[in-house]
Amino acid sequence: MTRTQVLILIGSDSDAPTMQGAVDVLGELGVSCEMDVASAHRSPDRVERLIRDAEERGVQVFIAGAGAAAHLAGVIASRTVRPVIGVPIDSSPLQGLDALLSTVQMPPGVPVATVSIGTMGGTNAGVLAAEILAIADAGLAERLKGYKRKLADKIEDASARLKVDVSR
Amino acid sequence: MTRTQVLILIGSDSDAPTMQGAVDVLGELGVSCEMDVASAHRSPDRVERLIRDAEERGVQVFIAGAGAAAHLAGVIASRTVRPVIGVPIDSSPLQGLDALLSTVQMPPGVPVATVSIGTMGGTNAGVLAAEILAIADAGLAERLKGYKRKLADKIEDASARLKVDVSR
Amino acid sequence: MTRTQVLILIGSDSDAPTMQGAVDVLGELGVSCEMDVASAHRSPDRVERLIRDAEERGVQVFIAGAGAAAHLAGVIASRTVRPVIGVPIDSSPLQGLDALLSTVQMPPGVPVATVSIGTMGGTNAGVLAAEILAIADAGLAERLKGYKRKLADKIEDASARLKVDVSR
Amino acid sequence: MTRTQVLILIGSDSDAPTMQGAVDVLGELGVSCEMDVASAHRSPDRVERLIRDAEERGVQVFIAGAGAAAHLAGVIASRTVRPVIGVPIDSSPLQGLDALLSTVQMPPGVPVATVSIGTMGGTNAGVLAAEILAIADAGLAERLKGYKRKLADKIEDASARLKVDVSR
Amino acid sequence: MTRTQVLILIGSDSDAPTMQGAVDVLGELGVSCEMDVASAHRSPDRVERLIRDAEERGVQVFIAGAGAAAHLAGVIASRTVRPVIGVPIDSSPLQGLDALLSTVQMPPGVPVATVSIGTMGGTNAGVLAAEILAIADAGLAERLKGYKRKLADKIEDASARLKVDVSR
Amino acid sequence: MTRTQVLILIGSDSDAPTMQGAVDVLGELGVSCEMDVASAHRSPDRVERLIRDAEERGVQVFIAGAGAAAHLAGVIASRTVRPVIGVPIDSSPLQGLDALLSTVQMPPGVPVATVSIGTMGGTNAGVLAAEILAIADAGLAERLKGYKRKLADKIEDASARLKVDVSR
Amino acid sequence: MTRTQVLILIGSDSDAPTMQGAVDVLGELGVSCEMDVASAHRSPDRVERLIRDAEERGVQVFIAGAGAAAHLAGVIASRTVRPVIGVPIDSSPLQGLDALLSTVQMPPGVPVATVSIGTMGGTNAGVLAAEILAIADAGLAERLKGYKRKLADKIEDASARLKVDVSR
Amino acid sequence: MTRTQVLILIGSDSDAPTMQGAVDVLGELGVSCEMDVASAHRSPDRVERLIRDAEERGVQVFIAGAGAAAHLAGVIASRTVRPVIGVPIDSSPLQGLDALLSTVQMPPGVPVATVSIGTMGGTNAGVLAAEILAIADAGLAERLKGYKRKLADKIEDASARLKVDVSR
Repeated sequence: MTRTQVLILIGSDSDAPTMQGAVDVLGELGVSCEMDVASAHRSPDRVERLIRDAEERGVQVFIAGAGAAAHLAGVIASRTVRPVIGVPIDSSPLQGLDALLSTVQMPPGVPVATVSIGTMGGTNAGVLAAEILAIADAGLAERLKGYKRKLADKIEDASARLKVDVSR
Repeated sequence: MTRTQVLILIGSDSDAPTMQGAVDVLGELGVSCEMDVASAHRSPDRVERLIRDAEERGVQVFIAGAGAAAHLAGVIASRTVRPVIGVPIDSSPLQGLDALLSTVQMPPGVPVATVSIGTMGGTNAGVLAAEILAIADAGLAERLKGYKRKLADKIEDASARLKVDVSR
Repeated sequence: MTRTQVLILIGSDSDAPTMQGAVDVLGELGVSCEMDVASAHRSPDRVERLIRDAEERGVQVFIAGAGAAAHLAGVIASRTVRPVIGVPIDSSPLQGLDALLSTVQMPPGVPVATVSIGTMGGTNAGVLAAEILAIADAGLAERLKGYKRKLADKIEDASARLKVDVSR
Repeated sequence: MTRTQVLILIGSDSDAPTMQGAVDVLGELGVSCEMDVASAHRSPDRVERLIRDAEERGVQVFIAGAGAAAHLAGVIASRTVRPVIGVPIDSSPLQGLDALLSTVQMPPGVPVATVSIGTMGGTNAGVLAAEILAIADAGLAERLKGYKRKLADKIEDASARLKVDVSR
Repeated sequence: MTRTQVLILIGSDSDAPTMQGAVDVLGELGVSCEMDVASAHRSPDRVERLIRDAEERGVQVFIAGAGAAAHLAGVIASRTVRPVIGVPIDSSPLQGLDALLSTVQMPPGVPVATVSIGTMGGTNAGVLAAEILAIADAGLAERLKGYKRKLADKIEDASARLKVDVSR
Repeated sequence: MTRTQVLILIGSDSDAPTMQGAVDVLGELGVSCEMDVASAHRSPDRVERLIRDAEERGVQVFIAGAGAAAHLAGVIASRTVRPVIGVPIDSSPLQGLDALLSTVQMPPGVPVATVSIGTMGGTNAGVLAAEILAIADAGLAERLKGYKRKLADKIEDASARLKVDVSR
Repeated sequence: MTRTQVLILIGSDSDAPTMQGAVDVLGELGVSCEMDVASAHRSPDRVERLIRDAEERGVQVFIAGAGAAAHLAGVIASRTVRPVIGVPIDSSPLQGLDALLSTVQMPPGVPVATVSIGTMGGTNAGVLAAEILAIADAGLAERLKGYKRKLADKIEDASARLKVDVSR
Repeated sequence: MTRTQVLILIGSDSDAPTMQGAVDVLGELGVSCEMDVASAHRSPDRVERLIRDAEERGVQVFIAGAGAAAHLAGVIASRTVRPVIGVPIDSSPLQGLDALLSTVQMPPGVPVATVSIGTMGGTNAGVLAAEILAIADAGLAERLKGYKRKLADKIEDASARLKVDVSR
């Protein structure tokens, strides 16, 4: 049985599609992860229990996705010395500006590693977690290099497609 | 010995001057209050202990002042059914916009009663706490009416002073 | 006949759906409320009359929902010492930022208890009004605790559903 | 005795320096004006009394200067069909963005003629009031043309000075 | 033949629907107006010609509606001493914030009377123009009072409808 | 006598220090330039005259620096097919956000080449003008390469200084 | 065989429709251009290779279109002394504000000529590139004057259409 | 000789004071680090050389501090699979909002772990780097726990001091 390396928490199950990119990229890179729901404001005890339990199970990186006054990542960061990655979700009328500032502007000593707003950030949280774990995992570092090469290759493909479009 | 009716928590002792207006106006209106320091991110256990202790002592209203990713009011709101008033403090380069959005944009079911940014909000938190307590305290309601009359009187005084300035 | 405890005023009848969450949660918690329309700018006399009448009928908390240059909550606050809760509504092209700043940035001495923008705020205004009234109503405080437990339970349910989705 | 044509109201006497430009330019253009203090939130009855009294005295244009949740201009506009000019004052940590949105975003049917934030707006409120009155006052229109010519002349002078600076 | 009292210029014919509210309210109040298209940036000579021609025809108030870097109102204000009303239009991805700041932040001496963003502002530009003209037209002032009473009456109607909805 | 290649216009002589960087860098690169004052709003005829005169004299690039509702660059762009570079100046309480949006958000067909806010932009306007002229001037292109190498060299120097500081 | 004068790079092929206006206007004005895909972050080597290759082929102006943390224009500007035009694309939840600030706020010495957000900017990038090239190409300058006259003519047509609509 | 684990790059030596917190906290926690200057825009070759050299020397985490159009962190992230932490610096008139959006809004696949604006972020970058390295270094994890306990202890001290102040 593989140990869960990355625990993804979301503040509401409506945030799951935004975070699917993290699940997908971690799966593709061979990093074990779980996604669960826990609201900093509606279920604070559950959040604490999940963090404590995760630390005991050896979870190495936390990812939190939340919108509006997005406190989930900060609450986790206040309870662990493991790296916490925050994804601001654009689920309120302010389109993620509120979630971004609530996630990134942490006081000295309690950082949250904040990534892009919305689905871009979902994917990026997964890649960042893999980069963190790859420091001590040379195989994973190689897979990440392959992943990045594929990103570059897709740009070459897009270039070729664009030229075909133009020449038609 | 009087029971503390209002507990004011601040995320850092550098926030104390901003919140002094709350202490002053509550004192003027005869409402007992205490101010203490507790950071949602640097001392989460202390915050929980202070909330639990406060509820046992019969504290009726919480006020929280914090800057940047201001989670303190939200953390209190997640742990009590007493009203929680939040004062966004302009202590980061973004001048309180971050603290405002982090304080006010709470998810459904867990409100924070947010007041103005900075010292205006410090005073207003005290007045709002008094208004809340005055629902069941007719004497306090009368003192609040007197306080509001004094605000109006000061405007009359300012008008008179301005006319003297102009006529000179 | 029950006395109305909470009066909800909206600046336009198009704001009614945004505020329905307040009506629903107050009903669920057994707090009597009424919703009425009154525009600070188009019917100022009506606003004054409704406030005066409400105070005479013993209304204990006001809720105001308005968009754009949202002055309704501030106008009520200038006329009463009862707590006034403001819901900024995202009905203009600026998506509620205008309503938020117009509602929350009240001058010292005249607070508005501002909650989240839009429908999140509609629900939160109702919960906050109940929290305020529950200070002097132990039964209501118990019902609020039940309401908050249900919020936490829904998170557990969402977690279970998410795991089923994943395992499929 | 000359009738007051323009009444300038400010929400606080600390706003007087920002509005001095209106007093100065109206004086220079021969338009009679008065400045007085009246807070929409702290002295609503006074505001209503001053508006009613001003209309009886034949005041033709209102100017309101206020900061933060700047409702003063809107409150006047709700009580008169005379034109109301609003000056958003940068007296809060948000540097006038709050006052701008609170002043300009009025609902359909109740306009406020909003000018620039701060001292630029103080002067502009005076010029706009004069432009409004000059529709029915050809002499004032001529004086306004002279005022605008002087603005253009000052640019010529500044150009000359700059060239002297460069040639030194 | 009636003289045109108010000239409405728009930067692009796609702005016409936003400004229709001005045409409608001016028609309802018996003020003669025309709407025409003229871009400050694409047809500067045309703008100058229309302004000069309008002044010769005795136009008394200008209204300009424009989006993005909305300079139209400012260009008119630089060429006339008649009052210029600006409507910021939300036609760019920034939803009118760019048009608002480009319209309102005029330098000292050259004001633009800025009203709300978008269709709210279209209507308000018409009402403000009428208020300006009503200073010297008692009949128009009476019609404006009637217009404002109808706004208040509509609120009463909305209140009645809301109560019917609730009682069903 | 050398022809002026770049004409720098500023909306107010108080903007001269912000634009000095353009004068300095153009001088350093051997590009002839002049700076003059002309306000789009206070001296529109002067602006037109200067543009027409500049085109006749063979000016090849325009630079405009202005704050607040910064229309100067746009007005020039509406009158010439020469490239117009705009520098948004942070001279209003909104710290240049107003000037940036007023300068950059030009309608299709009438571009302004907008550079950074404030003094950064002053220097960058000069460099951009030189880059534009260097397309047809190989010597200037070489001097620009030298200028850019010096920027890189200064980074090396800063690195060396920093290491000395650390080792002390 | 004609040399490519303008190279348009986009960060993602999904940005192609936004930039089509540049291709169209350059074609209409007889300026040769190419569009290609190259991401500053996903294919940095490709970006460098395309820049070096373009300089060798004699490309005279670069246009870069990118969204979110839009670094593409800045990366090009760091590698060439040819003018670089940046188009901020509104492809993230923040609607182009992020791309605008990432593109325009370049440090002293390394300018990006930034144009409007989104499709307005796509067209404007093409026009600006043509204006730059027209300094040394009198025929192109004439074609640009014709293009600008057509813009003005379209305004006249729109005016005529609007009047027909009104008269119906 | 100890290997450098964390390389801190700054875009300008004026950014060094903002980043000193990272150096201090890493020193306190026993993590080896170096700070150097390298501008993404003024010295792109130097940035590439430093990254390549750092990877060869076994640097495990990069920290980049930059202001305005802050591309430095993104450029590093495009060249390595090591985690890159970005500190947005408030050195432009927009007070760090530009640097924040330029740093955090990275496209899918190329994350930057963004922390708070300014000095708060300087310290947090150091703590985050240590948290990342502590995954594979149990001793460092213990030192981090000690560091976090000290943060909590300082809150207790601040609370005690505040009470002494009040009792005086």
